[in-house]
Amino acid sequence: MPTERLDHLFAALAHPARRAILARLAAGEASVMELAEPFDMTLPAVSKHLKVLERAGLIVRGREAQWRPCRLEADPLKEVADWVEGYRRFWERSEERYGRLDDYLREAQEADRAPGREGADEPQAPP
Amino acid sequence: MPTERLDHLFAALAHPARRAILARLAAGEASVMELAEPFDMTLPAVSKHLKVLERAGLIVRGREAQWRPCRLEADPLKEVADWVEGYRRFWERSEERYGRLDDYLREAQEADRAPGREGADEPQAPP
Repeated sequence: MPTERLDHLFAALAHPARRAILARLAAGEASVMELAEPFDMTLPAVSKHLKVLERAGLIVRGREAQWRPCRLEADPLKEVADWVEGYRRFWERSEERYGRLDDYLREAQEADRAPGREGADEPQAPP
Repeated sequence: MPTERLDHLFAALAHPARRAILARLAAGEASVMELAEPFDMTLPAVSKHLKVLERAGLIVRGREAQWRPCRLEADPLKEVADWVEGYRRFWERSEERYGRLDDYLREAQEADRAPGREGADEPQAPP
């Protein structure tokens, strides 16, 4: 398991600004200026976040001195997906359990409204 | 999007010891002592990691004063899976591209070995 890569990946994803930058880059490459504007961040703040993303392998930056566009590099996210996939059976099992609880509660509620399975709409015969 | 929850989740997953603890708990609940032993960690170190995992909602701890077993709570990992799923098309597109490059290189290599499409095994007629 590429442990250190996963450390960098998860740490890079742990900041909302960095996830927002990735979401922006999913729509196409952008310069540091273009990234700074919508997020109302200073250029040094954006640069710092970009360095973390670059170190995690999540973005690549162009070589042109003036216009160094940032581009999304989503391949490492497959490792995150693979890691989390190992736990799917646990949350699915729990979703199933909640689903069964919902069914049970709905049935219980219906049974409450209609005490008899048959002739529930008919008036009950007095004892 | 539950931004702060994702911050805590990704930060919690950014340490190999915490991911190892989750993997251990996937096999069944365990006490702090049981968690400390195989990872060769001190009890305070384990406790610190458990607090981070608990804050992220990834584990729950029993109430018994003496034996407070830790249990995996994998439901929040579905949020991580959902988040990363949004980028699947990017890494799949890139896998496809690499697949096509592989095909191209293999074909180019085969063409190199067998210059003619037919009769490649037969000796070439002298000019």
